[in-house]
Amino acid sequence: MTEPAPDFTSTLLELAEPLPLDCGKHLENARIAYETYGILSPDKDNAVLICHATTGDQHVASPHPITGKPGWWDRMVGPGKPIDTNRFYVICPNVLGSCMGTSGPASAAPDGAVYAMRFPVITIRDMVRAHVALLDALGVERLHCVIGGSMGGMQALSLAAHWPERTLRVMAIAATAAMPAQNIAFQEVGRQAIMADPNWQGGAYYGTGKAPDAGLAVARMAAHITYLSEETLGEKFGRRLQDREAKSFGFDADFQVESYLRYQGAAFTERFDANSYLYITRAMSYFDLAEDHGDAEHVGRLADALAPAKHVRFCLVSFDTDWLYPTIESRKIAHALNAAGAPVSFVELSAPFGHDSFLLDVPALDQVMTGFLQR
Amino acid sequence: MTEPAPDFTSTLLELAEPLPLDCGKHLENARIAYETYGILSPDKDNAVLICHATTGDQHVASPHPITGKPGWWDRMVGPGKPIDTNRFYVICPNVLGSCMGTSGPASAAPDGAVYAMRFPVITIRDMVRAHVALLDALGVERLHCVIGGSMGGMQALSLAAHWPERTLRVMAIAATAAMPAQNIAFQEVGRQAIMADPNWQGGAYYGTGKAPDAGLAVARMAAHITYLSEETLGEKFGRRLQDREAKSFGFDADFQVESYLRYQGAAFTERFDANSYLYITRAMSYFDLAEDHGDAEHVGRLADALAPAKHVRFCLVSFDTDWLYPTIESRKIAHALNAAGAPVSFVELSAPFGHDSFLLDVPALDQVMTGFLQR
Repeated sequence: MTEPAPDFTSTLLELAEPLPLDCGKHLENARIAYETYGILSPDKDNAVLICHATTGDQHVASPHPITGKPGWWDRMVGPGKPIDTNRFYVICPNVLGSCMGTSGPASAAPDGAVYAMRFPVITIRDMVRAHVALLDALGVERLHCVIGGSMGGMQALSLAAHWPERTLRVMAIAATAAMPAQNIAFQEVGRQAIMADPNWQGGAYYGTGKAPDAGLAVARMAAHITYLSEETLGEKFGRRLQDREAKSFGFDADFQVESYLRYQGAAFTERFDANSYLYITRAMSYFDLAEDHGDAEHVGRLADALAPAKHVRFCLVSFDTDWLYPTIESRKIAHALNAAGAPVSFVELSAPFGHDSFLLDVPALDQVMTGFLQR
Repeated sequence: MTEPAPDFTSTLLELAEPLPLDCGKHLENARIAYETYGILSPDKDNAVLICHATTGDQHVASPHPITGKPGWWDRMVGPGKPIDTNRFYVICPNVLGSCMGTSGPASAAPDGAVYAMRFPVITIRDMVRAHVALLDALGVERLHCVIGGSMGGMQALSLAAHWPERTLRVMAIAATAAMPAQNIAFQEVGRQAIMADPNWQGGAYYGTGKAPDAGLAVARMAAHITYLSEETLGEKFGRRLQDREAKSFGFDADFQVESYLRYQGAAFTERFDANSYLYITRAMSYFDLAEDHGDAEHVGRLADALAPAKHVRFCLVSFDTDWLYPTIESRKIAHALNAAGAPVSFVELSAPFGHDSFLLDVPALDQVMTGFLQR
């Protein structure tokens, strides 16, 4: 008889050793906030690491402490679900640079004052370095699988490339091996919106009673459009008016899509720190898995980057309506893995929701996930 | 012997009659700044009206008075060019709501003070109403052709639907008959960026020495991305760094695409008024040619809207890399025109530049233009 799996545990780990970073600095007293679900097997061979996306967090299947909403992948993680917590020991850390407990710009520096923009600029690999430190602390030598969508998928790929001995499997959904120029551009707009807000105050807004909420909301609105498909926007909102019979001939949110975006922007500021948004999008724009081997446009070099992971099993998933991380990005990874001789399965799923498909009700994704974790 | 065509004339017309608007108000003392090229024939049958896009102006083929750059369609308009000013009398007015001489929020109201947000909210049809008043003043009963790309194409379609007797031909490039939800969304982000800027001051920033330049720049940056194709961004910039050998691990414009966007945003604020941006994007989001006949999603209703123009010749052009006004939008118009019994030719051109293709070096567009104007 096994014990019933606990719902989840929420823990804060303080690293004993300074965490080395790609920028050359070390982060002292780094903290990692994480949740676990299920029970680690005696052989410690059933651990699954879930890496969250840009503005996600460790609350993968537990209610969000601020919004009270279900975890962001509640539909995917839990007893009997595709990532089955009766079987797997699921670990979900908040990424470095974020604002839900893990060290980030809103954390206290060793001098006791808030880091703000003194926080070092981090990379996706730095995030993964923190994940690996967490695995060390948990005594997990090798993961059953590392899983992530969007920026989470980048972390999963980075772990495979740089710490290939730490996982047997990699599941990267709606991801890329190098941030494309268009995405760098959109993220720059978001950062400029935040930094243009006078309340940003050079990032030193903590404790001033003012935060760059207006700028952060604009950044979120712009990003949110890119997460959805044109089809979704057309079907969900079209040109329908919001709570009115006719256009107002004014600048209120006449259209449902305008009202929806304003709400998304405002709600985001209640749960996310603007400086974290700067740091995390910076890490994403810096991401180029093959940069130490040339550039990602050359499949051969991406293959070199992934060659150390040739004994790892990969599963890549893209969505046909995702224009932010389109199928071509996953295909490049698949080609490179083939060139590296790594076992890879790659599927483009049909789903109407654009990039957000990885978070939403796509039964085919559940089936791919269930199958891949059992192989 | 005909006289050689003058380079251009630049004129400001003040309308004698109040201009009725879709919102129900009338605009007193409306002014229309326009340029003309070539000579109006004695029969007044060689006039071509060019309608500009969102942030365009009347300087279609003359140097811009602020930037000194060549006119925005210099490559298309001039002696011996596809819109041949040796043959055609070209009229290009600045649209209502803009800021280059035609009445807009920066203009003086009848009370002598600047309108600012007291300027009435206008529509695409209102812009065209002003164009028609200009044609009346010029004594042009019927155009040889009305031509426009993007928002200019919307004006051309609106003129055909509402004043079909005023033109023999319509050339609508990279246009739509109704602004799709995704574009409404992007424009809302731009407006929110402007209105979030404290320097906006509810629109009453004129004469205060402060303008919402930061917000306007962010709006422009976001919009600019949508004008380009992902391919263009990838090929023009990719992940190349700007004037540096390595990432700075900071928030400067490390990437060329970031530097380019910042420049585009900043340069735009020197030539454009933020309130005009609000009004013109509002007019675009309101645009639905079939709204008096149901909605544009129903081809039959769009056909009803275009039925009065069934004796007008139409030419529609889209570009295969334009994701802002994709080919499907032009196709809907072509279907409706077919249903209305109007003669229409429709071509999707292959060009790498995204929505901006209509402004750039696309020889196939020149050929289509030349051919259509001669038929």
